[in-house]
Amino acid sequence: MKTRLFTPGPVEIPARILRALSQVPPHHRTDVFRATMKRVTEELRWVHCTEGEVFLLGASGTGGMEAAVVNLMSPRDKALVPTAGKFGDRWASILKAYAVPHQTIPFEWGSAIDPNAVRQALEQDPSITAVFTTHSETSTGVVHDLEAIARITRPKNVLLVVDGITSVGVHPLPQDRWGVDVVVCGSQKGLMIPPGIATVSLAPWAAKAIEGERLPRFYWDLIRARKSAPLGETAFTPPVSLVLALEESLAMLREEGLEAVHDRHRKLAHALAAGAQALGFTLFAARPGHAVTSLVPPGGGDASPYVKRLREAHGMVVAGGQDHLKGKIFRIGHMGAYDLGDIHAVLGALDECVTTLSGAAGKNSVAVRAMSAATAAWQEA
Amino acid sequence: MKTRLFTPGPVEIPARILRALSQVPPHHRTDVFRATMKRVTEELRWVHCTEGEVFLLGASGTGGMEAAVVNLMSPRDKALVPTAGKFGDRWASILKAYAVPHQTIPFEWGSAIDPNAVRQALEQDPSITAVFTTHSETSTGVVHDLEAIARITRPKNVLLVVDGITSVGVHPLPQDRWGVDVVVCGSQKGLMIPPGIATVSLAPWAAKAIEGERLPRFYWDLIRARKSAPLGETAFTPPVSLVLALEESLAMLREEGLEAVHDRHRKLAHALAAGAQALGFTLFAARPGHAVTSLVPPGGGDASPYVKRLREAHGMVVAGGQDHLKGKIFRIGHMGAYDLGDIHAVLGALDECVTTLSGAAGKNSVAVRAMSAATAAWQEA
Repeated sequence: MKTRLFTPGPVEIPARILRALSQVPPHHRTDVFRATMKRVTEELRWVHCTEGEVFLLGASGTGGMEAAVVNLMSPRDKALVPTAGKFGDRWASILKAYAVPHQTIPFEWGSAIDPNAVRQALEQDPSITAVFTTHSETSTGVVHDLEAIARITRPKNVLLVVDGITSVGVHPLPQDRWGVDVVVCGSQKGLMIPPGIATVSLAPWAAKAIEGERLPRFYWDLIRARKSAPLGETAFTPPVSLVLALEESLAMLREEGLEAVHDRHRKLAHALAAGAQALGFTLFAARPGHAVTSLVPPGGGDASPYVKRLREAHGMVVAGGQDHLKGKIFRIGHMGAYDLGDIHAVLGALDECVTTLSGAAGKNSVAVRAMSAATAAWQEA
Repeated sequence: MKTRLFTPGPVEIPARILRALSQVPPHHRTDVFRATMKRVTEELRWVHCTEGEVFLLGASGTGGMEAAVVNLMSPRDKALVPTAGKFGDRWASILKAYAVPHQTIPFEWGSAIDPNAVRQALEQDPSITAVFTTHSETSTGVVHDLEAIARITRPKNVLLVVDGITSVGVHPLPQDRWGVDVVVCGSQKGLMIPPGIATVSLAPWAAKAIEGERLPRFYWDLIRARKSAPLGETAFTPPVSLVLALEESLAMLREEGLEAVHDRHRKLAHALAAGAQALGFTLFAARPGHAVTSLVPPGGGDASPYVKRLREAHGMVVAGGQDHLKGKIFRIGHMGAYDLGDIHAVLGALDECVTTLSGAAGKNSVAVRAMSAATAAWQEA
């Protein structure tokens, strides 16, 4: 049985990228690698949809989020954190770790952030200098209405800092056009490579936002990164092999076209949602995104047996719910190199799981039923 | 012409490790990967020579250094930084970024830190709670007498925090036996894998040193890492592919044996030093280590043409001097999977360079002279 990752990241890595990883990497202080870094940075600006700067850090996505906080905030600033999930809450945790004053607007997990609440909070407290939020909330499968939030923050000159970790390369996120100041991404999601690189993009108008007195930082210091970037260098030794993998991933995105990539994710998410609902599952997300589909089992029972059976009987790795959603939902990731065949495969497996776990036979498709019978006969023979 | 890295890291990556990198990596929240993490952590304790904890961070070595500072120091602590090179100075830069009071004891680059100066400073200022220093100073090729420094700090219960980035897997550094509280390492040196992992080891008696009020931190928070470690997990998504590479590298070190690995590095460093001196080069390091050999050209002339010619005529990537040593020295790295054949190759190239660049013919060995003549004849034919 093959192992298939349907995880909310790290995701399946295409063979082309595995091959790139197994190259003998050049030294990072050579012209050949400097040229690679410049090309990769240029392509990252394309994927991040910005004419501004994109910084590449050797870290997970959380490192990129921390870099955004410490480079954008001074101890005298105040932040607003609208959140409806674990990763929205992470912004608040980072701000708290640095003792930055912040107001959280919590929404129920699974619901979408109400942009009007952001507007009201900003109007009530003009001392707020930045809004930290999430585009695609990986813990619930919700995509928030970032465009509407940006329409509020941008005219007020309040920084909008977005966790785009499961959004870049998945959902349209035209940073400059929407007016998003900063977008953070990680490498192991829509970018399809192993974890270890975070990217932070700064819209052209936000270039000065990292200047002046800021929170203490050294490894995350983007001013230092800015000085090295024009030379095709990073402030500290970059994860060279992962940069080569990223170059290959960006080439794949370029070949398919960013719009086609977004469109494919949208279609796959809709296909999975339709199929799963036909099997009796309920969508957990009030506003489902295209990175992760969160499902509540038929009848609202325990979700854990689905995670277990998908893994043990079908070799499919999906994720359970996090924190208080443990056992309530499970999450199927489909970011990156997924196609309709993958969705058919996971729906076939879900179909079998429903029959086995809930005893609710009869939902199965004609094809899956015939296939199951044949497999059973073959196993008995 | 092949490209050969004789750089002070990232170093040549053995084919076995490239193969490990090209594996389909498992998801990090699976039992198979948790088991890998536990094995890797156990082997890292062996390489770090400690019965204490070893934390694995997705970052370059500098990230590991910053993690040490922010987890060990509170705003009321004071640090001592004996330094004799760029990487010793880095401790001071990180402490400065976090506004931690610190006293620097600068030694001339190329010289070794005098342990007595550390003793005097600690006796004069009992408010110093930690000494941050370097074992193998990559910018100069010096290995400092860490054992002597530990004999001073340990009885005083002053923390000794060591950059072992080009030392672990190269020099003997028996952390627990010598009494070193914390050792930081990076993945792209003696551990032979690409950059992107930092390791931080805490001696058993220093377990409490990261507890209590500390500097602001989130991604670097070792208390959080400590909570995840027993489960075979990391606080944030680890660089999964690099962990698989590290597993292979640790297997290679285990097969050769740590003592044999240290011994090989010692012999190669001595062989290169002897050969280079016979060719008219001078050793820059007052106390040469086994990771990097820093050479001053015959007659003390400009070192840059050597770096250029080694690269262009011999495909050998070495490093120039950094900061004020630019043009004065060049540095040949031989950490990791190097053997006597590699040293012969680099000495042959140095021999040719001396003749070509300084016109000081006659130093060449009989074999190299005959080889050069044959090559010249072949090129003319």
